[in-house]
Amino acid sequence: MEPGDSNSAAGGKTQSASAPPVEGVAGGGTSYGWVDGGLRGTSLGAGVIDHTKVHSEDLLHVWSMPSTANVSQQEAPRPLEKVNLLAARNERESFQIALRPKVSWSTSGIAGSVQIQCTDLCSSSGDRLVVDQSITLRRVVPILGVPDALVPIDPLSPQISLYPGETAAVWVSLNVPCGQPPGLYEGEIFITAVKTELDSSRTESLPKSERYRLYRELRSCLDITEPRDYSSPEEMVQRLTSASTTLRRMLDNPALQDCQESNGFGDMMDEDVMNNVSVRLKLSLTVWDFTLPVTPSLPAVFGISETVIEDRFCLEHGTEGWYDALDHHFRWLLQFRISPFFCRWGDSMRILAYTCPWPADHPKANEYYSDPRLAAYAVPYAPILSCTDAAKNSLRREVEILKSKPHWSKAYFYLWDEPLNVEQYDMICNISNELRSYSPDVRILTTYYCGPSGSELAPSTFEAFVKVPNVLRPHTQIFCTSEWVLGTREDLVKDIVAELRPDLGEEWWTYVCMGPSDPQPNWHLGMRGTQHRAVMWRVWKEGGTGFLYWGTNCYEKAMIPSAEICFRRGLPPGDGVLFYPGEVFSSSHEPVASTRLERILSGMQDIEYLKLYSSRYGREEGLALLEKTGMYLGPDRYTLDHGPVDVMRGEVYRSCRS
Amino acid sequence: MEPGDSNSAAGGKTQSASAPPVEGVAGGGTSYGWVDGGLRGTSLGAGVIDHTKVHSEDLLHVWSMPSTANVSQQEAPRPLEKVNLLAARNERESFQIALRPKVSWSTSGIAGSVQIQCTDLCSSSGDRLVVDQSITLRRVVPILGVPDALVPIDPLSPQISLYPGETAAVWVSLNVPCGQPPGLYEGEIFITAVKTELDSSRTESLPKSERYRLYRELRSCLDITEPRDYSSPEEMVQRLTSASTTLRRMLDNPALQDCQESNGFGDMMDEDVMNNVSVRLKLSLTVWDFTLPVTPSLPAVFGISETVIEDRFCLEHGTEGWYDALDHHFRWLLQFRISPFFCRWGDSMRILAYTCPWPADHPKANEYYSDPRLAAYAVPYAPILSCTDAAKNSLRREVEILKSKPHWSKAYFYLWDEPLNVEQYDMICNISNELRSYSPDVRILTTYYCGPSGSELAPSTFEAFVKVPNVLRPHTQIFCTSEWVLGTREDLVKDIVAELRPDLGEEWWTYVCMGPSDPQPNWHLGMRGTQHRAVMWRVWKEGGTGFLYWGTNCYEKAMIPSAEICFRRGLPPGDGVLFYPGEVFSSSHEPVASTRLERILSGMQDIEYLKLYSSRYGREEGLALLEKTGMYLGPDRYTLDHGPVDVMRGEVYRSCRS
Repeated sequence: MEPGDSNSAAGGKTQSASAPPVEGVAGGGTSYGWVDGGLRGTSLGAGVIDHTKVHSEDLLHVWSMPSTANVSQQEAPRPLEKVNLLAARNERESFQIALRPKVSWSTSGIAGSVQIQCTDLCSSSGDRLVVDQSITLRRVVPILGVPDALVPIDPLSPQISLYPGETAAVWVSLNVPCGQPPGLYEGEIFITAVKTELDSSRTESLPKSERYRLYRELRSCLDITEPRDYSSPEEMVQRLTSASTTLRRMLDNPALQDCQESNGFGDMMDEDVMNNVSVRLKLSLTVWDFTLPVTPSLPAVFGISETVIEDRFCLEHGTEGWYDALDHHFRWLLQFRISPFFCRWGDSMRILAYTCPWPADHPKANEYYSDPRLAAYAVPYAPILSCTDAAKNSLRREVEILKSKPHWSKAYFYLWDEPLNVEQYDMICNISNELRSYSPDVRILTTYYCGPSGSELAPSTFEAFVKVPNVLRPHTQIFCTSEWVLGTREDLVKDIVAELRPDLGEEWWTYVCMGPSDPQPNWHLGMRGTQHRAVMWRVWKEGGTGFLYWGTNCYEKAMIPSAEICFRRGLPPGDGVLFYPGEVFSSSHEPVASTRLERILSGMQDIEYLKLYSSRYGREEGLALLEKTGMYLGPDRYTLDHGPVDVMRGEVYRSCRS
Repeated sequence: MEPGDSNSAAGGKTQSASAPPVEGVAGGGTSYGWVDGGLRGTSLGAGVIDHTKVHSEDLLHVWSMPSTANVSQQEAPRPLEKVNLLAARNERESFQIALRPKVSWSTSGIAGSVQIQCTDLCSSSGDRLVVDQSITLRRVVPILGVPDALVPIDPLSPQISLYPGETAAVWVSLNVPCGQPPGLYEGEIFITAVKTELDSSRTESLPKSERYRLYRELRSCLDITEPRDYSSPEEMVQRLTSASTTLRRMLDNPALQDCQESNGFGDMMDEDVMNNVSVRLKLSLTVWDFTLPVTPSLPAVFGISETVIEDRFCLEHGTEGWYDALDHHFRWLLQFRISPFFCRWGDSMRILAYTCPWPADHPKANEYYSDPRLAAYAVPYAPILSCTDAAKNSLRREVEILKSKPHWSKAYFYLWDEPLNVEQYDMICNISNELRSYSPDVRILTTYYCGPSGSELAPSTFEAFVKVPNVLRPHTQIFCTSEWVLGTREDLVKDIVAELRPDLGEEWWTYVCMGPSDPQPNWHLGMRGTQHRAVMWRVWKEGGTGFLYWGTNCYEKAMIPSAEICFRRGLPPGDGVLFYPGEVFSSSHEPVASTRLERILSGMQDIEYLKLYSSRYGREEGLALLEKTGMYLGPDRYTLDHGPVDVMRGEVYRSCRS
């Protein structure tokens, strides 16, 4: 508004045309009331607000935001509009409800609490998506100031606190089961200002001092009535009278007054109240007759650090609790269309990666490996940690068992993370020779971002990188390269792919970790929502056939489940951390997903849409769709807003529905 | 760490020397555990944490921060050290306690609650600074994400909630009374992890269903004992027995179990518990034998919008509630060494400014005007709003009364905010002529940042600005100019001052509002703490004899006391808003100070230190002290850290104590 710190005198003080004049600054106070909130002030008055008599619309702003929005505490209110969503069967579609108090109606240090109640979504033919099963609510909690953790809201008490001057967000997910009949499903979400639990506990429930009083009175009453040898009937009458007096005094306790009037089931809000005072968010979901394949078309393998689990949950390797914890993590992560592997790092980036903690002959192993949601699994190469004969024998037996199974085609070995020199390459080759002696069709995955140092493979670093398959053939089948190497040059993809031999079963996969950094797609905290989701758009456009991510739970060491989550030094915030221990946020042991993990799932689902479209109209048309909608044009040219995502999905729906 | 988005291949991936190697990224997992929190993990275990058995030091970080620090939610922990403070009598000195959870010990969606209990501060000669009277605790609440609002902590339940991954801050103020004996006062602050009120209300207090059960049992017990005609002694025995059984069952209610064991005063923590599990912050305060003058040496006049008060608190002008509200604001602001004036803007920036809402012949007027804490007061020029004969007569009578009083020397008229053209200058001159006819020694204050447009006062804008006294003499005595005009050019002060006639009682005051902006001192939200405090350092160094600020409560219009605080469009955040309505944060009606208002008070106190020093050693030495300590060298060269502030104060203490 004002040149400010420059030494300019008169005449420099101008007011921009659009800004209103300002009280006290060149405007005669006329700007006062310029941004009039339009509160229905008269009904509220100057005293403490009785939220049961005031429409919640007067107490808070409510509006919806797409799942790719990072709704910050400073997010400004928008008009409330109906939410229209599209989802296939076996798909999860999410959006957010943003809430911001207009006034404070609580007396306990927060602006107020709101209750969020969702109806089932119903179709005109009577089919339903049921709340809590298919519809879930989570509050969005900031991590390092960035909205990221999605903490489940207790369905029995679906309330969240709002703070003065802060926008809160609730993440609503609709999970469409595989068997859900297609159709238009409609429902409503009621958002209602309520007393906070603290307000309630203060006014409705018995405070400590009252409980002591009650306790003492009950005891003294018991002293009166306690059976003994009575001297006379008169004494008994007196005792009964005296007990009655005490009892009547107790019944007069103010904290018990509402018990007389009410029916005893006052905690859930009745429908009339909701109809009269709640903000109603209308929600419609079109379920269409496409079913996302249960097995993801693109295997995306994600690491879970067993070390972190052992430390934080104080579990000894191999104990029952340890197996339970790994099992819990495995099953929880499967819902995100990713194929987990557990991992432990040895020295020089040698890595023990395994999808199932049980040996191949254990019943759990077959359950794990043949789970249709698992697109790929890592077979543990146990000798990587201790190269004993026993380890080698056990490995051989493991391969013997697995290679005979139908799921063997999903198996891979991940032996080394980013080998850097000829010595490390030789190790991989030696292991490969061993493994191929057990089964000639083993698949070995190797991650890399450069050629081996100490060899003169090629004159330039990029050429050395591109020529890696020549060095690792036949010791690697899955050549997994960092997206960081490409930078924004998508055209380099063809150089990588040109070196591969699909006829020998060779595949090109990619990964992201510390790099690439902004503005390219990655999963760091603080990146835009579409930037998170675009990692998978990039994979699909570049044509890789699989994806690897190094870590989902790789926060800093802690020995207590509820310890603060610290990101590791030297890593960009959020790198290697896609979910959090539930214990940090509540007494729940369920992991808490990040918004980034949800956007990974969305990206994986987008791939299925794009694949469906391409299967009908060809890959060129699929690529044209990406471009035409403006959703994704390249690693530094993709949509920053949500709109094109819905346009793409809508176009697939329109052109592919039967 | 990594070139990232550039198209660089192998070899570019380097690790900086100081960063540890990172699991999964070129380091073999060795960075895991690098930043080991050093938790006393073994005592905590993997289950729910029992905060009564664990030292709070294992549950949270506690450290102190100076009052000029903006402690953000992302503030990193520091070691806990003893806090050493220095204060004169009649001075307020503040610091902050920062708190950050190491783990979560609550089960209700927050990391946990802490109780903060302060001992009295005692001197070796037995003198005391008493908690709640002289020592107050307020929690620092972010406004637009910036720590700013200071919400009082209930002394009866001094608890605050901590959230996972967030640093919270408590603002501790020590108010040294005028009569406090000098000496070294020592005390401690105990910070103890406690159950949250919500945890407590769930487990300790009676939930609704339990209350209903209790109510029903009490009623049925009363039915048994209620006096009536008994058929036999046996019936009475049976009734007494039956009542006893019911009473025993009630006493077995789990919610009453702790009443048996405890002493009935369970809410305050006993000393043993605190000694065993609390984090102890040692605090020492040196009170020295200087007493800050009750009347501030530099009059600082600050506006309070009566319009905002009327609207937000739904008060009709002139009603009893309206007088109460103004009185409340006046008295509350006096504690900050500022001299409030109420104001209402007319058109073209004509302004009605008045310090006392009662007429001069009202007893309250004398109470207001002769309050020694008031350094200057505005006399209302009523005809500015409606220029009737009645208004003129009332004004004449007002001046007649006031000019005979000893406090008349504190009086000033503030008629027009920033006149811009010759027409507005003429209005001021006309009013001045009228006022001087009532009393020749009236003082008129005029704010301005430029010369009048439409006159050819001087060839340049700065010269036109400097020559304003030539136009306004004798119609203005207090020439109050914007610091923005000076920019960083302190040397221009002499040009302004050279035009004034101190022999005619002319004074130079300054003001800040929208400008100057960063990096110069001002009170906008988001500026550094020393930048807030430096406004007054600047005033003292430049030698102005007074200061004006346009508004302390000029947030956007609202018609509900607890309505969200919105800053006005077109103003930098925080401009014109130095405190908030208490109703936004709790049920309290007490205004909530901003950290900026506290830093204004600190700056006003610094002026008294500098004045004391200069009165002993001369102004040149005072200026040298500013420079030598590095506290303030110029509008863009002042300390960003707190250290030099304490050095300056310590130097004044050492060289001026008797």
